[in-house]
Amino acid sequence: MALIVQKYGGTSVANTERIRNVARRVAQYREQGDQVVVVVSAMSGVTDRLIGLAKEITALPDEREMDMLLSTGEQQTIALTAIALHALGQKAVSFTGAQAGIVTDGTHTKARIQDITPDEVHRALDAGNVVIVAGFQGATEDGQITTLGRGGSDLSAIALAAALKADLCQIYTDVDGVYTADPRLVPKARKIAEISYDEMLEMAGAGSKVMQLRSVEFAKKFNVVFEVRSSLNDNPGTIVKEESASMEDVVVRGVSLDKNQAKVTVWGLPDVPGRAASIFNALSQSAINVDMIVQNASHAGGNPATDLTFTVDKPDLLKAGKVLEGLQAQLGFREVTSDEKIGKLSIVGVGMRSHSGVAARMFTTLASEGVNIGLISTSEIKISVVIDLAQGEQAMQALHKAFLE
Amino acid sequence: MALIVQKYGGTSVANTERIRNVARRVAQYREQGDQVVVVVSAMSGVTDRLIGLAKEITALPDEREMDMLLSTGEQQTIALTAIALHALGQKAVSFTGAQAGIVTDGTHTKARIQDITPDEVHRALDAGNVVIVAGFQGATEDGQITTLGRGGSDLSAIALAAALKADLCQIYTDVDGVYTADPRLVPKARKIAEISYDEMLEMAGAGSKVMQLRSVEFAKKFNVVFEVRSSLNDNPGTIVKEESASMEDVVVRGVSLDKNQAKVTVWGLPDVPGRAASIFNALSQSAINVDMIVQNASHAGGNPATDLTFTVDKPDLLKAGKVLEGLQAQLGFREVTSDEKIGKLSIVGVGMRSHSGVAARMFTTLASEGVNIGLISTSEIKISVVIDLAQGEQAMQALHKAFLE
Repeated sequence: MALIVQKYGGTSVANTERIRNVARRVAQYREQGDQVVVVVSAMSGVTDRLIGLAKEITALPDEREMDMLLSTGEQQTIALTAIALHALGQKAVSFTGAQAGIVTDGTHTKARIQDITPDEVHRALDAGNVVIVAGFQGATEDGQITTLGRGGSDLSAIALAAALKADLCQIYTDVDGVYTADPRLVPKARKIAEISYDEMLEMAGAGSKVMQLRSVEFAKKFNVVFEVRSSLNDNPGTIVKEESASMEDVVVRGVSLDKNQAKVTVWGLPDVPGRAASIFNALSQSAINVDMIVQNASHAGGNPATDLTFTVDKPDLLKAGKVLEGLQAQLGFREVTSDEKIGKLSIVGVGMRSHSGVAARMFTTLASEGVNIGLISTSEIKISVVIDLAQGEQAMQALHKAFLE
Repeated sequence: MALIVQKYGGTSVANTERIRNVARRVAQYREQGDQVVVVVSAMSGVTDRLIGLAKEITALPDEREMDMLLSTGEQQTIALTAIALHALGQKAVSFTGAQAGIVTDGTHTKARIQDITPDEVHRALDAGNVVIVAGFQGATEDGQITTLGRGGSDLSAIALAAALKADLCQIYTDVDGVYTADPRLVPKARKIAEISYDEMLEMAGAGSKVMQLRSVEFAKKFNVVFEVRSSLNDNPGTIVKEESASMEDVVVRGVSLDKNQAKVTVWGLPDVPGRAASIFNALSQSAINVDMIVQNASHAGGNPATDLTFTVDKPDLLKAGKVLEGLQAQLGFREVTSDEKIGKLSIVGVGMRSHSGVAARMFTTLASEGVNIGLISTSEIKISVVIDLAQGEQAMQALHKAFLE
């Protein structure tokens, strides 16, 4: 008898028909003798509808009250899921995040889990129940309802799996698992059977949307092995776990293309200490996330100046432009240009650590396709380049062919 | 500085525009220096939508899970109301029933309030907040979410007013107050300025739909003075309070017509002890509510038998017929007939206690209108008669003219 934590996202519980499907799957595990804890998100569309109501009233609603409002979405799903399990003759009981013992700090709308005291969950499991827990939410020590921010339901599931010492944590989603590349862009992409936490983190950071970074970080920190799989079929998914020796045999685990970045170049920035810092401080204060940064060497000549290039999320580009405009007089740079038609192409794999020449092979492959490289950044297990968006898919397919076929 | 509890029903918070109106009204009281506790229902339609989702899954959803599900409706309204108050520059904080300290027994979907420990409410009021509490809900000692059943939000408001020793409790609804008769049926109906708990109870029992019986009973028990008034205007409403000496000066407080009853007659029931009891036990076990009961004297002759007539709620008529059918062989009555085209017409007033001849005047008035009386039942402060539904409005207007104009 295993203890399994299963998490179902908003599309998997989008309507009562799908909730019944979830219940059927859970019942199958129960009938095999497993204990099951189910973590569910709000039915898709519910959270947006609630946010819409709040925004009808004011542009900047209070964060404590947003948590009070949004936490109702998951609470509705847990009740309906329990009802669906009863309809199949299964014992089941639902818990809000607070009732499940998920204790967070008081940072409303993006609270951090501080502790999990799952006594009630254990008691309900021992009494033969499926336990259904509202994802995305918790409560402070003194009973204030909090939410965990984006990807919060994944986090709830992984944290519960850690606290309950579950044998297995399954993250059900609308894809079959993690792929070597986006199958819509690379027809020969394959599902990855096993991937390390670090690779998963780099893939997420490189634009693969399967899971938010913080849930993977949490799983890594507490060594929670989890499986990403589809709620629409019974195919095995992708196991995410600690790196093993055999994983290094594969040089590149996957290729990803992030189309959501824009490139900004500040031309003729006087080469004086602190100028670049001023720019990134100002962007950070405006909550603009900067990803890749490249600074060229100083120009020769009387007034040493440099060109600074970085990427930001496309939706932040306009705001970034305004921030830079406001700094021009103070910092004395010549002009700012931007380019939205870029893609950030990355290869990820723990095998890079022990294999040399990976970057050279990547650049050679791209050159043979006539793809020009704008920026380059590297980590221990990832190499990213910025290229022309129009060449993105072709370049991605070429890299996939070179490293993964 | 007064402490005021205000309750707003589902139509008063039906959309964000109306929630903003509620916030404006609350802010007016705040600006006069009053402390305000606001109790709100679910936005109209929300509860029915949630019930619909559960019924899509199963006809008889678990009651604990229904409470988990339905309590989200009020939770959404409290958050949106707090957000609307913030938008007006008012400090406000929302509480679920559990957070407000509303402790109930464990009878899910119709829990009874056992205790209110409003420490958090006091603390938030003392800190200068408007406190917004989810109506209709509470929690058991061990933290299970419960709901209070029909009219539960009124009950929450009155119970909180009692626990907080509020100076005033206002029940906002979509009517201006309690009327001497339904103004849609009796154009000369007037709003009643003050009414006693007992009169209000008899009016509610006689088909006036302003409030559920149990909230009025609770108010009477804890001597909570409350005002029924409209959320759509600033007109003074109707004060409901303990009976005072001056109230007896008015013989009849109001006239009401209940069109929702049907008459059942059991003909030729053998006049043997226990036969009538068998009938009403069987109806009660089928959850059929019986209102008026009349039994005629025994027929003369060889086999003493009687005719038994009573009224039930119209929607229960079919079910009542089936129950009686099943009893015919056992009890040996001749036949059952029923009549749906009846109205129950009542006059209510504490003045009846000290004024004689009220019934005679009522019957004389009806006779002069050519209205035939079917059944009669009386209490200390109410006289009800069953008449032909087609004559209902005419008869009601005649009684209103005789006693109230």
